[in-house]
Amino acid sequence: MKTLGPNFPATAKITGSGHLEIGGVDCDSLAKNFGTPLYVMDQETLIAHAREYSSAFKTEYPNTLVLYATKALAVRAILALLEKEGLGFDLSSSGEVLTAKKAGANLSKTVLHGNNKLPHELEMAVRERVGWIVVDHLQELEAIHALARKFSRRVPILLRVNPGIEAHTHSFIQTGQVDSKFGLPQVDLERAGKILKTLPNIDFQGIHAHIGSQILDLEGFSALVNRTIEFMEFFKGSFGLRSRVINLGGGLGIPYLSKEKSPSISTYVKRLAKALKKRLRGRLLGIQLQVEPGRSIVGTAGVSLYRVGVVKRVPGFRTYVSVDGGMADNPRPILYDAKYHAVLANRMNDRGKNKLTVVGRYCESGDYLLKDVILPDPDVGDLLVVPGTGAYTYSMASNYNRVPRPAMVMVSKGKARLIVKRETDEDLQRLDLG
Amino acid sequence: MKTLGPNFPATAKITGSGHLEIGGVDCDSLAKNFGTPLYVMDQETLIAHAREYSSAFKTEYPNTLVLYATKALAVRAILALLEKEGLGFDLSSSGEVLTAKKAGANLSKTVLHGNNKLPHELEMAVRERVGWIVVDHLQELEAIHALARKFSRRVPILLRVNPGIEAHTHSFIQTGQVDSKFGLPQVDLERAGKILKTLPNIDFQGIHAHIGSQILDLEGFSALVNRTIEFMEFFKGSFGLRSRVINLGGGLGIPYLSKEKSPSISTYVKRLAKALKKRLRGRLLGIQLQVEPGRSIVGTAGVSLYRVGVVKRVPGFRTYVSVDGGMADNPRPILYDAKYHAVLANRMNDRGKNKLTVVGRYCESGDYLLKDVILPDPDVGDLLVVPGTGAYTYSMASNYNRVPRPAMVMVSKGKARLIVKRETDEDLQRLDLG
Repeated sequence: MKTLGPNFPATAKITGSGHLEIGGVDCDSLAKNFGTPLYVMDQETLIAHAREYSSAFKTEYPNTLVLYATKALAVRAILALLEKEGLGFDLSSSGEVLTAKKAGANLSKTVLHGNNKLPHELEMAVRERVGWIVVDHLQELEAIHALARKFSRRVPILLRVNPGIEAHTHSFIQTGQVDSKFGLPQVDLERAGKILKTLPNIDFQGIHAHIGSQILDLEGFSALVNRTIEFMEFFKGSFGLRSRVINLGGGLGIPYLSKEKSPSISTYVKRLAKALKKRLRGRLLGIQLQVEPGRSIVGTAGVSLYRVGVVKRVPGFRTYVSVDGGMADNPRPILYDAKYHAVLANRMNDRGKNKLTVVGRYCESGDYLLKDVILPDPDVGDLLVVPGTGAYTYSMASNYNRVPRPAMVMVSKGKARLIVKRETDEDLQRLDLG
Repeated sequence: MKTLGPNFPATAKITGSGHLEIGGVDCDSLAKNFGTPLYVMDQETLIAHAREYSSAFKTEYPNTLVLYATKALAVRAILALLEKEGLGFDLSSSGEVLTAKKAGANLSKTVLHGNNKLPHELEMAVRERVGWIVVDHLQELEAIHALARKFSRRVPILLRVNPGIEAHTHSFIQTGQVDSKFGLPQVDLERAGKILKTLPNIDFQGIHAHIGSQILDLEGFSALVNRTIEFMEFFKGSFGLRSRVINLGGGLGIPYLSKEKSPSISTYVKRLAKALKKRLRGRLLGIQLQVEPGRSIVGTAGVSLYRVGVVKRVPGFRTYVSVDGGMADNPRPILYDAKYHAVLANRMNDRGKNKLTVVGRYCESGDYLLKDVILPDPDVGDLLVVPGTGAYTYSMASNYNRVPRPAMVMVSKGKARLIVKRETDEDLQRLDLG
């Protein structure tokens, strides 16, 4: 049997009739039953990724809390599934807190992030007892302290510090360089310590530092561990502020292309734990490690299904294959020049020879999904599948051209279950007045 | 009185107390009454732009139908206002057709665009008697013909032809180059003529050609006129298919920065009419001209209001000013590296000296609104106004980080009226199942 690449869900198979099957369900029947465009999430892959994190940490550093980075795909059913697997959540807005709540999450196992959390979001976090507020700048310390007093409690926080490390990734998703909106600049640490000493209702619990997203070279993570522990030592040494938590953010990359190499979750965990144990050398044992994986949990668990609508040959240039989705349901190509792979789900045994450009249905030239992809010569009606679309697609989707956002299904053991309803044209009118 | 740049709405003024006022309403009171982030549309500017198009064409080429390019800002109240001004609509999805219908538009004065119109969209266009379907590829001719027969009518179409002209604009919004997903490649024209002769229920009415968006150099429009008339002559000469309509798309740019020069609507209309009359030389009189302006109608009529939440100084690098919106309500900076201008609406008489970076609230480093903008040293709570945000902001907005989309108000003569409700956290849960 032809193997599918690491960019596909673990259950992806080619059936006897040459169709792509995911979670035991033929993509052709998914398209027929739920329509296209369609996001398909594979439950088995999601669970496998969550368990790979849990079991690798169980061996390497048991005192770890894995917090799913909700922004990658903030959908209730996904959170409910990951909650059952014991994960906590990294949240970045009141909307994400609400989603976690509705998914039945234990909010004491969540963190609230944000370089500019709004007053109502801080209040919600304190009221709902979000596990840790990750303080991104000194101004919010006073605001959190006031809320803590209002609710008569001590509020646990982590201080997000800018580690000053350049990760090798797209500049838009690189967060750890000195010149960043995220985290305290290192010159502010002294002031942070002084302020913390004056705010009794703030419960300083440790340090957060993050270097970015879609990182395939693990080198940066060892540097991150060392830097973060220096920050912890600084707060302990200068202010007697002992850290009980070290949160190293997320960032592990995934393979988007069929032959792309990316470190496994276990390799990443081993590397992180090794650097941590080496640096701690028994001195700071008992510290809880927190990590915030998003893409590496949901990314390759998801694929997007599109119907081919038009094949247009522009002689001397290229063949444009237009599908019924595009930049509004997957803005990553236009945002980051992100590269994807694709197959024709109804013709998996056909060989492709020519380079094609797959574009979307939106009225904009930038609306493409794949440039120069090799596919069998597509026919109108063929089912195009783009793997690796579980992360940062639906969560960043728009209604450009007033096109409703696609539905999402979860597949498992031969069954498909709708987890996000398809938006309708009528839905898109609901906020318009007058 | 300090004049505000051409990137501001026509009614923008500085009040005695040094506040920015639009449509006779103090931005400070808008923010207090409607919250931030907030889109503010100035009715007077919208009407002035619509009338500048109408009156310039009345003088220069009276047989013109101005079709507002709905994709720039597809909001019912905006369409209702422009409909009252006599404009028709350029629509690009069933959702936009529905919005036009709810705005009370006369659908016989609309066109339906799209490089991959879906079957239900074509059916809706035929059923609802959209004025013209702009045929983007040969495959859809058969589909439209079948629908025309089903509804026992002849369906008026325009053929969109790729003019093969490179406009000077961002490649994502350049549409007229040969290598484009839009329009018939010129090699297909012969075949198009032959097919059209076999489809009695298709009413060929003329040619559509468009060179792109945000065009500040009018040279390309003269070339476009000449090329389009060649296509008309070809269909007349080779197939006896006489054009009654010539649709030249849109594309007129606007000033985004305070000192940016851009041609006025009247100058653009004169240039277009002059090229057209010169080329027609009386031979093809009676032809209806259609144009599809979007940005030049709504762009500078709109501003975005944000509240400053955080001011973070990163020594040796920059000062980050975080506001309560960002990439999800205005994706143009991250998509196109688009440049904007900004002011502090509550401190219009203060002078700025230092370069600042204005970033959004989203958990992404790419989330910026302005780089190196000169503003008075901002305080938390200041009201930041970004002008020129009427087009391609709300229409491309997302719910990234599960943050609700902003509200929109229309201001006029001292009054503000809510035209788009603010989304809520609860709203964003409505499609989630299970």
